[in-house]
Amino acid sequence: MSSCRCSITDIHTHVVPEHFPAYLGKHLNVPWPSTVEAHACHRHVMISGSVYRTVSNQCWSAPNRLADMDTLGITRQVLSPMPELLSYWLEPEDGAQLCRYLNETIAQICADHPTRFTGLAAVPMQSLDHAIAEMDYAINKLGMAGVEIGGNVNDRPIGDPSFSPFFEAAVRCNAALFVHALRPSGMDRLVGPAHLQQVLAFPGEVGLAAASMITGGNLARFPKLRMAFSHGGGTLAMLLPRLQHAWTSLPALREKIPASPVHAAQTMFYDNLVYDAPTIHHLIQVFGLKQLMVGSDYPFSIMDGDPRERLESLNLPDQALELLAHANAERWLFGTGA
Amino acid sequence: MSSCRCSITDIHTHVVPEHFPAYLGKHLNVPWPSTVEAHACHRHVMISGSVYRTVSNQCWSAPNRLADMDTLGITRQVLSPMPELLSYWLEPEDGAQLCRYLNETIAQICADHPTRFTGLAAVPMQSLDHAIAEMDYAINKLGMAGVEIGGNVNDRPIGDPSFSPFFEAAVRCNAALFVHALRPSGMDRLVGPAHLQQVLAFPGEVGLAAASMITGGNLARFPKLRMAFSHGGGTLAMLLPRLQHAWTSLPALREKIPASPVHAAQTMFYDNLVYDAPTIHHLIQVFGLKQLMVGSDYPFSIMDGDPRERLESLNLPDQALELLAHANAERWLFGTGA
Repeated sequence: MSSCRCSITDIHTHVVPEHFPAYLGKHLNVPWPSTVEAHACHRHVMISGSVYRTVSNQCWSAPNRLADMDTLGITRQVLSPMPELLSYWLEPEDGAQLCRYLNETIAQICADHPTRFTGLAAVPMQSLDHAIAEMDYAINKLGMAGVEIGGNVNDRPIGDPSFSPFFEAAVRCNAALFVHALRPSGMDRLVGPAHLQQVLAFPGEVGLAAASMITGGNLARFPKLRMAFSHGGGTLAMLLPRLQHAWTSLPALREKIPASPVHAAQTMFYDNLVYDAPTIHHLIQVFGLKQLMVGSDYPFSIMDGDPRERLESLNLPDQALELLAHANAERWLFGTGA
Repeated sequence: MSSCRCSITDIHTHVVPEHFPAYLGKHLNVPWPSTVEAHACHRHVMISGSVYRTVSNQCWSAPNRLADMDTLGITRQVLSPMPELLSYWLEPEDGAQLCRYLNETIAQICADHPTRFTGLAAVPMQSLDHAIAEMDYAINKLGMAGVEIGGNVNDRPIGDPSFSPFFEAAVRCNAALFVHALRPSGMDRLVGPAHLQQVLAFPGEVGLAAASMITGGNLARFPKLRMAFSHGGGTLAMLLPRLQHAWTSLPALREKIPASPVHAAQTMFYDNLVYDAPTIHHLIQVFGLKQLMVGSDYPFSIMDGDPRERLESLNLPDQALELLAHANAERWLFGTGA
């Protein structure tokens, strides 16, 4: 096992605020989140009167996160909201208000520890005008590096051409985009315990979202987009050779899809959250060594517990490790570096 | 590139009968298939008054198939119905009648050329009593080797415990099972041309169907099942390390899922229809060299055109090639061999 002395940026970590402001909008029965005390060091996230998830104080406490990062040898965490908080199902003005609160919370943690944390914003994608305005505020006023979006917005995949104005604005703002699974399709195909939504449906959701950017033309329309996908791109690595074959051999596809799907996929970024060295090696083969980054899902229960050990288990040469450990993340986040 | 002199069994090829009998049942507006003449050597498959697909005479003509097999160096094709013909949406007695016709058609081709073709039956899974009776007839009277089933039956994934009696009967009949994508989930996540259903939604459907056999317990209940999945198991290879990690680290999953998901997956079979040597190598790594078989989707437009060349491109030692080329298929089909 090679030893990795490089600095590590973990691009997939989540934040839940300790408290939420009371809902002050004008609508009834709004699924506005709140938190209440749970067992020691934990709070329940309440949505519509039920516990959505019980989370630890690592979700909001910078000191706790920094202690964990020091233990694990993580130089920097990229902070994004727990995806359910994106709340695309709220009315736009409510959504904008919730996103603003999330963004100020995350931006404050980053401002307090600028060498250790970089922030990704939430924006109300249910209204592109609101989303673009909030992205502009988050990037240009709060100093955040980009935006976390769901793989779909109320069941509309992000590759839908209607989202073009948002992607155009992201390029204009120089915002990195992080696409995370959210309210996935395929739920009617699961048999077994409730956790399987995250375990089995999330990767399919991310894979189809990434594919939709290719097949719907949004990626070709905005070649300067810097877009990263969670969970190693989900199932995309298994979809891509089939899509490439179909694109090569079926004129009907080739006419509609502007560029080679494999080449298009290799312009996007992916975290390495697949829990398995051979699978990470396969992702390197499919997407390229310069497109993969470290992601852990910290601090949730399904997180990959030791991202440094995972990196070391790949037995890659130092130069390759540097790319995965932080240089690719810098290129994705800021458009700079290797 | 290594040269493969071994005999090849292509386990994923489809049949469409040239004609269908008229519908003689008692229901109205039944989506009973028929065919009408199209351009030279082709017929339209008509369902509910529209063209479902236009197919070539390779779908029903044994001489044409044999000529192609000789050209491509394929010793044996395993014949299964075009999946849409499984027609799980028909009333059970109508479905049983259609399946019987499909099975007699396929069994006749196999009886005429017993060294070149092996048949898989259609059974009306919408009624397990009818399905089990037809499986028994197909295996024991028509001499077929197994059954093709969809990854779901009218949206119920095959891992649902309600299908246990069917799997129990499959073990009793010594029937090999071939699971194919059919009416997939995820359709609302596609952006682009209509072909994307097959290209992008089929793999997710197969992956979730395979996972459901593990998470729902059907596989553990019937350890003697010989079950193969189309399209390289679809997305399963990307889902499996995440499922394994969750099973290892989350007690709630470990309590409900009887065995290590990776070990369970390595007891099932998969075709190699992923169009890409590195991806096939990854499947070998994930599922094991003894679980992979040749599949081409002959004679449909998305088929892998030269299965022998695909095998040779893997650069495997002769003994490994023998497994992939035919020995694994024999073990799956008949429970014999390597």
